[in-house]
Amino acid sequence: MASLTLALDIMGGDNGPPVTLAGAKKALLAYPSLNLVLCGDEAQITPIVSQWPKSFASRYRIEHCTEQVSMDDRPTFALRNKRDSSMHRMLNLVKHEKADACVSAGNTGALMAIAYYVLKTLPGVDRPALISSLPTASHHKVYLLDLGANVNCDSEILFQYAMMGSVLAEQVSGIDKPRVALLNVGLEQIKGNDQVKQTAQILSNTPGINFIGYVEGHDIFTDKADVVVTDGFAGNIALKSCEGFAKLVLHEAKRLSNQNILTKIMAKVALPLLRKIYLRMNPDQYNGASLIGLRGIVVKSHGNANSDAFLYAIKEAIQEVSRQVPTKIKDKIETVLMERP
Amino acid sequence: MASLTLALDIMGGDNGPPVTLAGAKKALLAYPSLNLVLCGDEAQITPIVSQWPKSFASRYRIEHCTEQVSMDDRPTFALRNKRDSSMHRMLNLVKHEKADACVSAGNTGALMAIAYYVLKTLPGVDRPALISSLPTASHHKVYLLDLGANVNCDSEILFQYAMMGSVLAEQVSGIDKPRVALLNVGLEQIKGNDQVKQTAQILSNTPGINFIGYVEGHDIFTDKADVVVTDGFAGNIALKSCEGFAKLVLHEAKRLSNQNILTKIMAKVALPLLRKIYLRMNPDQYNGASLIGLRGIVVKSHGNANSDAFLYAIKEAIQEVSRQVPTKIKDKIETVLMERP
Repeated sequence: MASLTLALDIMGGDNGPPVTLAGAKKALLAYPSLNLVLCGDEAQITPIVSQWPKSFASRYRIEHCTEQVSMDDRPTFALRNKRDSSMHRMLNLVKHEKADACVSAGNTGALMAIAYYVLKTLPGVDRPALISSLPTASHHKVYLLDLGANVNCDSEILFQYAMMGSVLAEQVSGIDKPRVALLNVGLEQIKGNDQVKQTAQILSNTPGINFIGYVEGHDIFTDKADVVVTDGFAGNIALKSCEGFAKLVLHEAKRLSNQNILTKIMAKVALPLLRKIYLRMNPDQYNGASLIGLRGIVVKSHGNANSDAFLYAIKEAIQEVSRQVPTKIKDKIETVLMERP
Repeated sequence: MASLTLALDIMGGDNGPPVTLAGAKKALLAYPSLNLVLCGDEAQITPIVSQWPKSFASRYRIEHCTEQVSMDDRPTFALRNKRDSSMHRMLNLVKHEKADACVSAGNTGALMAIAYYVLKTLPGVDRPALISSLPTASHHKVYLLDLGANVNCDSEILFQYAMMGSVLAEQVSGIDKPRVALLNVGLEQIKGNDQVKQTAQILSNTPGINFIGYVEGHDIFTDKADVVVTDGFAGNIALKSCEGFAKLVLHEAKRLSNQNILTKIMAKVALPLLRKIYLRMNPDQYNGASLIGLRGIVVKSHGNANSDAFLYAIKEAIQEVSRQVPTKIKDKIETVLMERP
């Protein structure tokens, strides 16, 4: 790996510096040519990093910030009033090419708003998208986008999302000609709302995209597609419904564990398994999400992430830097648009 | 219970007469004042019902139909070309008041199209909705609508759905002043697409509805609301994503059961529990769904339903008849519209 620099929002997330810095330390250990800019409150960061190995000293610097975006700040408020927040400063470092990418476990809405404002979209991209990968039955990944960056998507935006998702699956997961599908309420051509039908029309006439047609909600997890495209309204609701459902299954198992002796034993044994499955299934927690379509790489770790999940988000950012994802998205869009009738 | 007559689509569903008739028999046993019209192929029905207790003879009749809607017929095809199908005839019996309600486990799309054509909507209702109840953590029910009857919903239709869902929760589940929420991508007022924001505005100004604001996907299962309203696109995707996710959890547990001896034991114990939870969680399979907003009661059982699930759908129909759900929806809409500024 060539030397690269990531800017980290140390103040972001429910657990703040102790967790984000523990993830940062693991990343420095795992990637010898990685350099970090630790954005946040110097007074909180210094006592922790002073415990780090002396050999790390030349590989990080603290970017002191006087503010931080809280988890319940409204996006527009955070954008307008917290210019010296660790989140805003981290994004500025990417904009001014002082960092190759950035990672935050902070307020998702604020991150999307500030990233959009600071970095701007790539040429040919109208709106950024929030994308994450989910597990499938065959242990492959499926990318789902948009997860809530943009709730009003016309066919042009869904088309751009299909291209961006395809690039991410190809570059980050190494899938050749990723199978791209549109999420719909049925498989027949006549199904769906106008945006979806128009997007299917456009994608069918786009040789650069391996469009396989529609999939339904239950197909997300069956490895029918490598990339599933939908608007930010349906995508967010699909993801969060599954998250809620997973919690309900855990809750039900716990409840049964207090019933009679047989279900008690069953539940006691099943619970660790369920927790394991839940963790693997909870994409936001486990895999993080990327904000793509911007002139820079932004990876979002879960607000409640532990240091391993934060490390995972850092790895995702490193992968996107080494595969030059924004450039590849720009190139893809240029190529596809040139081929368009 | 006063005497009532249900029309059943005996040919509908993946398993056809053996299963639907087994459900019908259980219903006759459970409800002494229930009468049934068995719509379907006489040659397939007669050998089975001839085995029924002699005392049932006066309580059912066979309505012989020469056609049946198959599970993969396109809705428009079924509507135009299968006028003598068991599904179409069943709906005609309700229209001509020869039956108080009807139940089918057949092709959902065809059922929606034919029911809409045959029965028409109630005054003040633009589109029917498909509604079902899901379990929550506190073991209450939550009603979710629309599950896919109508993918393009403006605020007026979502408003009508809120009223209809509220009536069903009140009448069928006996909930006083049901808490009605709109499904959205966040809880803040500024979140969501235009339709959702406009609907929230209307509902906030409607004293006859106990509108509690927005809920997110994961809140569906947390007993925050008694009725969750969304368009048929997002509702269908939410429901089917959870169904797919539940299958993935089962699949993962099965896979682990073939790993090492420890996970093998864990999984063997966990599997029956997971299956139990899955069944309880799979609303379509377990509870059936109702098509509401029509001038008649139509209940949809799952295509792959067993006789107990079909019985459950019959019970739902009986409950809706005894509570006069269509009349209550009509009254509610009249009252609310009169109060509207």
